[in-house]
Amino acid sequence: MSCRLRHLTTLENLPRATIEHLLDRALAMRDACAHGTRKLDLLAGRTVLNLFFEPSTRTRTSFELAARRLGADVVNFDIGFSSTSKGEALYDTLHTLEAMHLDAIIVRHKVSGTPDELVRHAMSAVSVINAGDGNRAHPTQGLLDVLTIRQHRPDLDALTVTICGDVKHSRVARSDVHALATLGVREIRLCGPAALMPEPAEFPQCSFYQDFDEAITGADVAIMLRLQKERMATSELPDEKAYFRSYGLDRRRLALAARGCLVMHPGPLNRDVEIASEVADGAQSRILEQVGNGVFVRMAVLAELLGR
Amino acid sequence: MSCRLRHLTTLENLPRATIEHLLDRALAMRDACAHGTRKLDLLAGRTVLNLFFEPSTRTRTSFELAARRLGADVVNFDIGFSSTSKGEALYDTLHTLEAMHLDAIIVRHKVSGTPDELVRHAMSAVSVINAGDGNRAHPTQGLLDVLTIRQHRPDLDALTVTICGDVKHSRVARSDVHALATLGVREIRLCGPAALMPEPAEFPQCSFYQDFDEAITGADVAIMLRLQKERMATSELPDEKAYFRSYGLDRRRLALAARGCLVMHPGPLNRDVEIASEVADGAQSRILEQVGNGVFVRMAVLAELLGR
Amino acid sequence: MSCRLRHLTTLENLPRATIEHLLDRALAMRDACAHGTRKLDLLAGRTVLNLFFEPSTRTRTSFELAARRLGADVVNFDIGFSSTSKGEALYDTLHTLEAMHLDAIIVRHKVSGTPDELVRHAMSAVSVINAGDGNRAHPTQGLLDVLTIRQHRPDLDALTVTICGDVKHSRVARSDVHALATLGVREIRLCGPAALMPEPAEFPQCSFYQDFDEAITGADVAIMLRLQKERMATSELPDEKAYFRSYGLDRRRLALAARGCLVMHPGPLNRDVEIASEVADGAQSRILEQVGNGVFVRMAVLAELLGR
Repeated sequence: MSCRLRHLTTLENLPRATIEHLLDRALAMRDACAHGTRKLDLLAGRTVLNLFFEPSTRTRTSFELAARRLGADVVNFDIGFSSTSKGEALYDTLHTLEAMHLDAIIVRHKVSGTPDELVRHAMSAVSVINAGDGNRAHPTQGLLDVLTIRQHRPDLDALTVTICGDVKHSRVARSDVHALATLGVREIRLCGPAALMPEPAEFPQCSFYQDFDEAITGADVAIMLRLQKERMATSELPDEKAYFRSYGLDRRRLALAARGCLVMHPGPLNRDVEIASEVADGAQSRILEQVGNGVFVRMAVLAELLGR
Repeated sequence: MSCRLRHLTTLENLPRATIEHLLDRALAMRDACAHGTRKLDLLAGRTVLNLFFEPSTRTRTSFELAARRLGADVVNFDIGFSSTSKGEALYDTLHTLEAMHLDAIIVRHKVSGTPDELVRHAMSAVSVINAGDGNRAHPTQGLLDVLTIRQHRPDLDALTVTICGDVKHSRVARSDVHALATLGVREIRLCGPAALMPEPAEFPQCSFYQDFDEAITGADVAIMLRLQKERMATSELPDEKAYFRSYGLDRRRLALAARGCLVMHPGPLNRDVEIASEVADGAQSRILEQVGNGVFVRMAVLAELLGR
Repeated sequence: MSCRLRHLTTLENLPRATIEHLLDRALAMRDACAHGTRKLDLLAGRTVLNLFFEPSTRTRTSFELAARRLGADVVNFDIGFSSTSKGEALYDTLHTLEAMHLDAIIVRHKVSGTPDELVRHAMSAVSVINAGDGNRAHPTQGLLDVLTIRQHRPDLDALTVTICGDVKHSRVARSDVHALATLGVREIRLCGPAALMPEPAEFPQCSFYQDFDEAITGADVAIMLRLQKERMATSELPDEKAYFRSYGLDRRRLALAARGCLVMHPGPLNRDVEIASEVADGAQSRILEQVGNGVFVRMAVLAELLGR
């Protein structure tokens, strides 16, 4: 790459070469670990801070493990999850942390665009990494999803990927679409009940479905989204049983997909709401591979942003 | 040892040689630390995760210190103490953590048997260490208790040990009995009010007492249990003053024990409920030695399970 | 220094040479970090424990970063912020932690004098560092404040320092006065509404003001205190707008001070309550330098107390 990345807030507009470089680097991390390397010291002496305004044990732990495996120190800044949502207080927090000479701030916030606000207001050489903001972006999830797909199906330009569920509230769906479109996937289908679908204008690269049977037919990859109850208005909350009947992935529906269709989910699972256990735990499930790849992708991102 | 331990969920059925090996290894850890070794690197590059579904600052800190003194990284997975009690969600959490390539999961859970459930469902080479499950087992506490006794009284087969208090709800009592019986202690006496005593059939190795004066007479070791108010039904909760009169260890009662009787308690103390301060802080108290030995025992267990 | 410091609970009665030695050492830390040293290993193998009975993400993080940059391990002992306020339970916690062979306990507690209680009851070689107790002392804040002043104005004996706000509830003000008086600052002015001012007898080194215009006239340093709403009785709580009019630092008032007057605040800011944003973010603000110096001062204190 000619131009070095300093922040990672979204995959939108990231060049294809940059995404491919990060994926390759994640694979190199995976290979190093597979060959018994327990710890690299690429980031020895660096300090990474987890600034989570929304609770997330999985993603925080994945970043923490990634940073430590690169030799970095990790500090968890346990912000109250209710307070400090006003802009000014946020910038004071940012500048306070910068004054402590941290190398990277990994931020999760319920307000879309917060990581970019931090980038705009940063006064030092700190790197900002988005660990999920509102319904806008979750770039490391997007990367780990395409990494998982590419491992099984390097023929990306031949693939049909169906993303099903609460697309409207899903930052995962947005980052997935950005990554998949940039890497030239043949077809991206979005599917969900009308109330949970975004405006078509937001996703010109995608085709829209309300009938899941139709949307999954012939798909090579099915990415099932978590029903984000915590992000929904009460009026938007679907009945779980009815939802499963219409949009849950079970064995019958999976049989409509292309042979060997990869089954993916960002976790944590609402079993028998968006996915049946028989499929989540079945032979085509790549869900746990996704988790493992998450650590390698985060190692790659941290090494890329902070390494010399 | 011929067969290497991979998990530690209970001391029940653990061979005497295995328990003695772990105690010897704990002593070696203590000696290394006493001679100024601040850090061993037996577990450099390994990652240990604390998965505590019940709050416990002391035990969690003891495990964290033990792991770090062996050079391991420690991640605290801060699970909400209310949610994630359903079986399926627990296994999803387990498999997610395994997919992140952790070396050990240290688990505390209010439901007896949870660590064994994790062992049964584990898909990788992860080690599971029980840091206390329900009222069933607390194996590192059992080990540190017998280590503390053995240091002062290596003549285990000549000893009478009295365990007094809320035996029914005590995982400590259960692990103590397993360790003491396996190491061939002469007599184990269990004592407490009828409502807080277990079924005799559960402890065929022990004699049962309701009169504490009688139970402590001639004892070489008195292990006082914490009144586990948080585990009791309201109807079981004794009046604290009446409890202390009948089952509290004070100076008068200690005089009934054998000369030099060791006074022990797993902590944290309910002072003047199960033990008088004059005794807890007196010359025969081994309570703080227990805490110190806790770190060495946990170092030994971690080194044994995770070391090459 | 002839006599080695073992604890740091207050700056009161600390010799001038000791304070200057700590400031010099903090500068040496800063220089080492400025020249690219990412990590010293002065405290390799040592373990430092954060024991915070009051929540404080900033100070805890600052201590954590300081300790890690010296190579020490850090354990956060997450005490419930409501329980464990009774003396006896506190000593049991102390002795439990000492039995685990920690090197230092960094304590914050809402009751003034708690760190000294810990020092009095400590049974081992553990060092106690006060991270703020009640309204009494916050010694590392006092040190970082005088360090920040000294960097810009080494002519301490020519300076007038105005401390304005809720002096009565401020441990920062108390530690600042101790440090400033010991280092021979020419004049220390305390200013605030009558209800928030301490007894004059407590601060014989200072002059007292109720009119902020008067107090800031000619000042070389203005230390604005945070309105400690959480420490005030409802009857003491001032109206924020009225407070700002009388005691807020804005551009007009700053113009009354000596040219180049340093503007300081311990953070976090109540913007437009005790300080206007135009001043907090202005050219004379040293607020973020204070934060940066906080890490270096804490490195110096830890190295001094724990180093060989």
